[in-house]
Amino acid sequence: MVRLTLEEGRKLAFDCLVNNGCDEDNARASADRMIQAEGDGCPSHGLFRLGWYVKGVKSGRVNGKARPVADVLAPGVVRIDGDGGFAPLGQRVAHEALVSLARNNGIAAAAFVNMFHVAAMWPEVEALADAGLVGFAFTPSYPYVAPAGGSKPLYGTNPMGFSWPREGAPPLVFDQASSSMARGEIMIAARDGHSVPATAGIGPDGEETTDPNVVLKGAQLGFGGYKGAALALMVELIAGPLIGDFLSIEAEEDDGGQGGPPKGGELIIAMEPACFGDADAIRAHGEKLFAAIAEQEGTRLPGERRFQNRERIAREGFEVPQVLYDEIAGLM
Amino acid sequence: MVRLTLEEGRKLAFDCLVNNGCDEDNARASADRMIQAEGDGCPSHGLFRLGWYVKGVKSGRVNGKARPVADVLAPGVVRIDGDGGFAPLGQRVAHEALVSLARNNGIAAAAFVNMFHVAAMWPEVEALADAGLVGFAFTPSYPYVAPAGGSKPLYGTNPMGFSWPREGAPPLVFDQASSSMARGEIMIAARDGHSVPATAGIGPDGEETTDPNVVLKGAQLGFGGYKGAALALMVELIAGPLIGDFLSIEAEEDDGGQGGPPKGGELIIAMEPACFGDADAIRAHGEKLFAAIAEQEGTRLPGERRFQNRERIAREGFEVPQVLYDEIAGLM
Repeated sequence: MVRLTLEEGRKLAFDCLVNNGCDEDNARASADRMIQAEGDGCPSHGLFRLGWYVKGVKSGRVNGKARPVADVLAPGVVRIDGDGGFAPLGQRVAHEALVSLARNNGIAAAAFVNMFHVAAMWPEVEALADAGLVGFAFTPSYPYVAPAGGSKPLYGTNPMGFSWPREGAPPLVFDQASSSMARGEIMIAARDGHSVPATAGIGPDGEETTDPNVVLKGAQLGFGGYKGAALALMVELIAGPLIGDFLSIEAEEDDGGQGGPPKGGELIIAMEPACFGDADAIRAHGEKLFAAIAEQEGTRLPGERRFQNRERIAREGFEVPQVLYDEIAGLM
Repeated sequence: MVRLTLEEGRKLAFDCLVNNGCDEDNARASADRMIQAEGDGCPSHGLFRLGWYVKGVKSGRVNGKARPVADVLAPGVVRIDGDGGFAPLGQRVAHEALVSLARNNGIAAAAFVNMFHVAAMWPEVEALADAGLVGFAFTPSYPYVAPAGGSKPLYGTNPMGFSWPREGAPPLVFDQASSSMARGEIMIAARDGHSVPATAGIGPDGEETTDPNVVLKGAQLGFGGYKGAALALMVELIAGPLIGDFLSIEAEEDDGGQGGPPKGGELIIAMEPACFGDADAIRAHGEKLFAAIAEQEGTRLPGERRFQNRERIAREGFEVPQVLYDEIAGLM
């Protein structure tokens, strides 16, 4: 393993992206996002993604010099055209516009289109909670999950993010797939020869299996079965057709088997508590629930571990496998 | 069993409520809502609830002559004070206001407070889809579900409803609890001596069990485990503190062990597709996904069965057990 400080990691990602066709704004936004993931102890959204990003730009599919543009379509709706670049720059461009619409209207939506690889969504919703807002985020991906009763992949793992501003504590933030397991977890189980829970997916024959290789050939399942599948269906509709971007099956067609990052959209919704009542009283009331959760032994809030990681990794730095470090060096 | 036409059932419920302290507006809204449930083949939200409603009014806790009032708090937020009555009249009062705000702003929220017994939420979200809008609904209830890692009931079963307007078909509508099973299903399993799946809940000792009696003494679990619990937590926050109404634990305190219908709030969010793009094109794009679902053998859309029931029951009427019919007659 190679140990890096966050700043070293950020420079590595930035340089690598600039050397491979991104301009500085695009490289900075994407590098910052990867390092934010490393800093939260979530390497699957970190430097590990760099090769994929470079491949996307080099293939000409991804615009490394994107200039995302925000258009206010209605008093509560802003659309951000990502100009065919990676998601982080578009998300950065949109944040202020979305916050401002939500403060004026009480609730507002940001429709992101024409972007590549909406990764983990907790950074967007956490930024909304840091501004005192309640946030939701939704995005489709590639078809991995079967519809309820079906056996072929149709929906993405279709995560949903949520954030709530807290009093004297980091915000409550979760970002969870509609599928029972993350795609990457199943791939890692296959690589390591481990089994997966029977709830993870089905084989091409539609039968339950605990063999990750069979799931990868078949389809994943929604978490809790048909209820998770219903959420995945909802995410397809509101972060695909509603905002004028791809369904997961269309993102796969568009990629044309290149295995690059998915092109698609993202829907973010923000609510301003001060438009619903007294914002301080609302936060204090939320704390009553958090106190009742903490009273029970064994409980942990969603996202709690990430905030603990963040403190530790800011001090200690993070590690990447030597093979990944060498791969990045080879891309310079 | 006693067979009734929908009109007979409606008159029965209306008369019973009027004879027990509701005025005509309140009785009509609640009776219509119960008969809508019977008409969709969902008796657990139908006349079965009448005794509970009557008890609530007779105890003086529920205002049978409520005059709900809608206040626009921000361009995208309307608050409906239910005046301590049953939810259906407040929901009826709010519908036009919410639709109008959503059409003007692209997205809007309705915050319902000071109401009793938000029942199934599909009627509200279906009405939004009938008006061409995308709808979400959320409500807490009484504490039944343990937080992730915990063992004591804290969250309600906390359903989330969703609707999407379709082209040439009834809207897509789902309304699903954050818990693995409905409370009523577990109670029925206990009554009939059946076991429940191990995912349904835990005993007071925090251990898995398939005995519904033990679950009823312990706590229910979120669907898919911690992910469903995260949704339940979200629903508590956005349909409790955000809108200025009760958490599930507060609703229980407020009831004070009387076992009446829960007092609390509901959050509804509506989005106007025409503010995001071309509404016809958006619906047509959604149909591409529905066609891909229908192509797979064995699939069924959430809510599909209800629409089939609706057609049949409108022709054939519905049945109530003789014991329930007699109970209602005794309340007249």
